[in-house]
Amino acid sequence: MEDYGRFLALLVSALLVGFVSVIFALVWVFHYREGLSWDGGAAEFNWHPVLIVTGFVFIQGIAIIVYRLPWTWKCSKLLMKFIHAGLNTIAMILVIVSMVAVFEYHNARNIPNMYSLHSWIGLAAVIFYSLQLFLGFVVFLLPFAPLRLRAALMPIHIYSGLLIFATVIASALMGITEKLIFSLTNPAYSASPPEAIFVNCLGLLIVIFGALILWMASRPHWKRPPEELAKVLRPDGGSPEGTEAESTMTDCINADKSDVGFNSEAARKRNLKLDEAGQRSTM
Amino acid sequence: MEDYGRFLALLVSALLVGFVSVIFALVWVFHYREGLSWDGGAAEFNWHPVLIVTGFVFIQGIAIIVYRLPWTWKCSKLLMKFIHAGLNTIAMILVIVSMVAVFEYHNARNIPNMYSLHSWIGLAAVIFYSLQLFLGFVVFLLPFAPLRLRAALMPIHIYSGLLIFATVIASALMGITEKLIFSLTNPAYSASPPEAIFVNCLGLLIVIFGALILWMASRPHWKRPPEELAKVLRPDGGSPEGTEAESTMTDCINADKSDVGFNSEAARKRNLKLDEAGQRSTM
Repeated sequence: MEDYGRFLALLVSALLVGFVSVIFALVWVFHYREGLSWDGGAAEFNWHPVLIVTGFVFIQGIAIIVYRLPWTWKCSKLLMKFIHAGLNTIAMILVIVSMVAVFEYHNARNIPNMYSLHSWIGLAAVIFYSLQLFLGFVVFLLPFAPLRLRAALMPIHIYSGLLIFATVIASALMGITEKLIFSLTNPAYSASPPEAIFVNCLGLLIVIFGALILWMASRPHWKRPPEELAKVLRPDGGSPEGTEAESTMTDCINADKSDVGFNSEAARKRNLKLDEAGQRSTM
Repeated sequence: MEDYGRFLALLVSALLVGFVSVIFALVWVFHYREGLSWDGGAAEFNWHPVLIVTGFVFIQGIAIIVYRLPWTWKCSKLLMKFIHAGLNTIAMILVIVSMVAVFEYHNARNIPNMYSLHSWIGLAAVIFYSLQLFLGFVVFLLPFAPLRLRAALMPIHIYSGLLIFATVIASALMGITEKLIFSLTNPAYSASPPEAIFVNCLGLLIVIFGALILWMASRPHWKRPPEELAKVLRPDGGSPEGTEAESTMTDCINADKSDVGFNSEAARKRNLKLDEAGQRSTM
């Protein structure tokens, strides 16, 4: 892999920033707010920021770049698709729970639902995310869609994935803004109490995490090599692109431990050639 | 150009959505708010949303895709760089004026500056935007930077340009959220008065505009063909990539009116080949 060291440095930075963001969300609700519970009160609302930062930001971000990890290039494409879809499904579940928490909190306090721009754009992101997950499952994971259709839809799948991720981050920033304005009253948000500074920093961390993920996801030379080359890296041969259903979940475990793929200039060139034709189905 | 009709449809949609966003910002401040003036009052603040939507969103968005317009491929690269830099400079000026308006309004009312996440991320976007403009001018417009440096910096220039644009949109959405919460008191934002619905729609329009621009900017087959091919499209020959300073501003006016470049498969292939090597300096 070209610039393997730089990729690793960025990956570690992204994991660190993402992890610290989740910690910040937890410190926010436990140290500055009412903690977590499921009683219709403020502590139920608090599940919302914690689960959104954990699921919709951090786990979705990792799901986006999971194909890029060079040590997974020896694993079967099907296994990687399962991991990609699995991480996104976990994120989706956390997002649904986080939304239930907000709706229950609003209803218990007679606060209207869905009036703010945050709620509009947040709900739109959730709807598009579930559509993306469903279509991704039907087209790219199930073995029925023809290669032509996969090739035609892949650029849209990639673009909408990245757009949804960016929209989720924008929505999270709006949510932070709303929550700080509503909950900081004495002193107010404008007086910059420690909580305001701390949660603003959480917002910045989320933006930095997003920027790192989008950079890693948009470098063509860091893409997973096409399946034909990945097969060479696996002693058991694996299965060709488009018929991944035949390959087994053990492809990765049985894989040769050599690092041949990491420095493969041929792999990079194949990637870029297939990109030209819009034929590749890896992020 | 491949998919010329689709490109045109997207361009017209983006222009329309961007234009309607500016109109919405004006209707917001004139119909629902205090209009525009420069007196330290609320009408001075109102320059902020109007100029941000006009300059930082709409004009920056157009500046991003200006190289993609196929009828400009016959123009010299230098002319297009001037237009790209010029549009971004106009946007920068509008952004600075819009920030002065906010700071003056805050100071006149003893409202603290720079306490909110909106202000932190908005200011960061302005700082990175001015850095991007300065570095873009020095590296890509002035004729001194070696081709190697241009090629190395171009992917970063493109990525940071798109990231700043997305961050600006996120910041605008936070700004809308803040302003609606603070200014809607009777009835409150949560009661969804007409102004709330109207300005939420402005937020949605901005997101749609951003999504259209990012799609157009990230399709490799819609990139401007490299200069060598563009020369063929110009009867006067023009100048090769990297020495654009020699070409004249009239290249575009003198250009052959034939549409040879619009359907050039060769141009697309050249684009993608140069993309592989990271050698191209067009958005």
